[in-house]
Amino acid sequence: MKLGGVARRTIEPAQDGAAVLVLDQTRLPFSTAWRRLATLSEAADAIRRMVVRGAPLIGVTAAYGVWLAMRADATDAGLARAVDLLGATRPTAVNLRWALERARRALAPLPPAARAAAARTLADRLADEDVATNRAIGRHGAALLRDALARRGGRGRVQVLTHCNAGWLATVDVGTALAPVYEAFDAGVPVHVFVDETRPRNQGARLTAFELAEHGVPCTLVADNAGGHLLQHREVDLVLVGADRVTATGDVANKIGTYLKALAAKDAGVPCYALFPTSTVDWTLSDGVAEIPIEERDPREVTTVEGVAPDGTVVAVSVAPWGVLARNPAFDVTPARLLTGLVTERGVCAASREGLASLRPPTSGDRP
Amino acid sequence: MKLGGVARRTIEPAQDGAAVLVLDQTRLPFSTAWRRLATLSEAADAIRRMVVRGAPLIGVTAAYGVWLAMRADATDAGLARAVDLLGATRPTAVNLRWALERARRALAPLPPAARAAAARTLADRLADEDVATNRAIGRHGAALLRDALARRGGRGRVQVLTHCNAGWLATVDVGTALAPVYEAFDAGVPVHVFVDETRPRNQGARLTAFELAEHGVPCTLVADNAGGHLLQHREVDLVLVGADRVTATGDVANKIGTYLKALAAKDAGVPCYALFPTSTVDWTLSDGVAEIPIEERDPREVTTVEGVAPDGTVVAVSVAPWGVLARNPAFDVTPARLLTGLVTERGVCAASREGLASLRPPTSGDRP
Repeated sequence: MKLGGVARRTIEPAQDGAAVLVLDQTRLPFSTAWRRLATLSEAADAIRRMVVRGAPLIGVTAAYGVWLAMRADATDAGLARAVDLLGATRPTAVNLRWALERARRALAPLPPAARAAAARTLADRLADEDVATNRAIGRHGAALLRDALARRGGRGRVQVLTHCNAGWLATVDVGTALAPVYEAFDAGVPVHVFVDETRPRNQGARLTAFELAEHGVPCTLVADNAGGHLLQHREVDLVLVGADRVTATGDVANKIGTYLKALAAKDAGVPCYALFPTSTVDWTLSDGVAEIPIEERDPREVTTVEGVAPDGTVVAVSVAPWGVLARNPAFDVTPARLLTGLVTERGVCAASREGLASLRPPTSGDRP
Repeated sequence: MKLGGVARRTIEPAQDGAAVLVLDQTRLPFSTAWRRLATLSEAADAIRRMVVRGAPLIGVTAAYGVWLAMRADATDAGLARAVDLLGATRPTAVNLRWALERARRALAPLPPAARAAAARTLADRLADEDVATNRAIGRHGAALLRDALARRGGRGRVQVLTHCNAGWLATVDVGTALAPVYEAFDAGVPVHVFVDETRPRNQGARLTAFELAEHGVPCTLVADNAGGHLLQHREVDLVLVGADRVTATGDVANKIGTYLKALAAKDAGVPCYALFPTSTVDWTLSDGVAEIPIEERDPREVTTVEGVAPDGTVVAVSVAPWGVLARNPAFDVTPARLLTGLVTERGVCAASREGLASLRPPTSGDRP
């Protein structure tokens, strides 16, 4: 997608061939900075500190991290260390483990001297696959926007509500939940997106509003609390969210707060879809609430907010009384029963075991 | 309740008898400042700018505003102007209109020379009534906490989730939704409160966490997005919220986001109560979603956040891309079907027309 009018990916090989460049998402939208990742620890740190975030982008960054590791130490021990270190950065995203397992399987049989080149080839392929996957999600999902426009009698704009950032910044390009928005918008479908600010890290305010505006898609920022009211008053036609991990039964772990919007959509009778690549499905799980571990992040993400002060400096301000305790669960699980359906690169299906199975039987590529 | 260890009300007569002092809630928790309101316009401005907020406190402040107006102009025109000006400050809170109508009815028959003294007497009485009402809400509601402790088999602490601030800062003293928490805590019931930060104005982070801590009640701040997850995982025993306006059928208008928490409580089977004085009931309304006007506030409340910078200064930082549009509905309506019950100074009842009527038939004191 476009950044300052120029088509860029969120992760790109450096021109000198010795590193990858990633758009530093901790600084957006206040500044557009690229960070160079040249070592395993830099890649792991970028994932851990959310310089890169979004399940698909995390997976691809991890694959490049394995490449960077193999350049320094391509032994079996080096490979194991890279997989372990990268795998421990974020506990919830299944794509991370999927990408790492794919790298481990591809590289382990090779002689060490061949591993770096093979790892690089694999990472490039995963990046390209991500883009192709997202374009397919966009094509399948755009039909939902056209349906919504038809339900409006073709009048006005399709009103979408989204939570967090599952746009191109969460992926290598195009996005998952927002892929249909871009697809439909580019095809001339009138669309407007309500963007949840998505506390505590404000990915909606900082990333989704930014990337939609860069692409020219009309959008309106709202507090996370507002979505229920908007749905109740029929100001939303369609709720589109991403996914960090999906069970074989269609339960969806996504950014904290997604569950609340799915409840409100269900209560209002407004369609609510989760959109994700099938690599996000963990086919071993059947009960998301019981089985998906939820990352608890630093409470300071709740007690402080980063923004631009009147003097133009970026500063983190404390928004709570001194010394207050805080909890910071980063994800929640939306039970399949609340979702109208799921959208993957393979098509749209019901949020159920049967629905997911109907798209295509799991193959060896679906999971390690 | 206690502020710095000293019992204070949120609104108190000035010692010189010529004004009232209000705790400036726009500055909490960063500084504890009292503002002197000596004129009608200062009182109206304090309500409009949310120096005072919370439906009960707004009503009492308006009553003192009428007193201040009568000191300057006690003619019929002066009385009408005061009621109109104060009534236009906040469109959603019914207590405001209730207090103003009570003042108008009491003062209109009097000769102008008697109006100022009568207005002051009425305002003092409304303030004392508010405290007595809240203590009664606390007694009735404390039984819910004892029930919750019994459901836990007496183990651990009663886990309460609350939204926004319906504590003593929202009233003259004691609070509404938090009145039972203080009542139970003071009686030795182990209790812990999860506090929604309550974007966009952060009343939970800034006011509720502050006042609970001042009183010594254990609490934990969470993002508004977190409540669904906590409820789903049985980390909450009881949801307690306030109300800005309640229909005769038990629909509850309260701070934006309340509806989402009520949905999640219902989904988890966790009891969810709204607590308010019966003066909050608008007996003329029967469909909250259709009939209660929802105030839309300045979008800058969404795009900026105020807090304390590392250098100790209070600063508003911009948290969104430059120029982004925002919407800021300030309240939402929780349909009665989602509430386990209602708690008023008259007792606990079902959230229904029958439930509200059962407490006591409406008298002339219930509404103008």
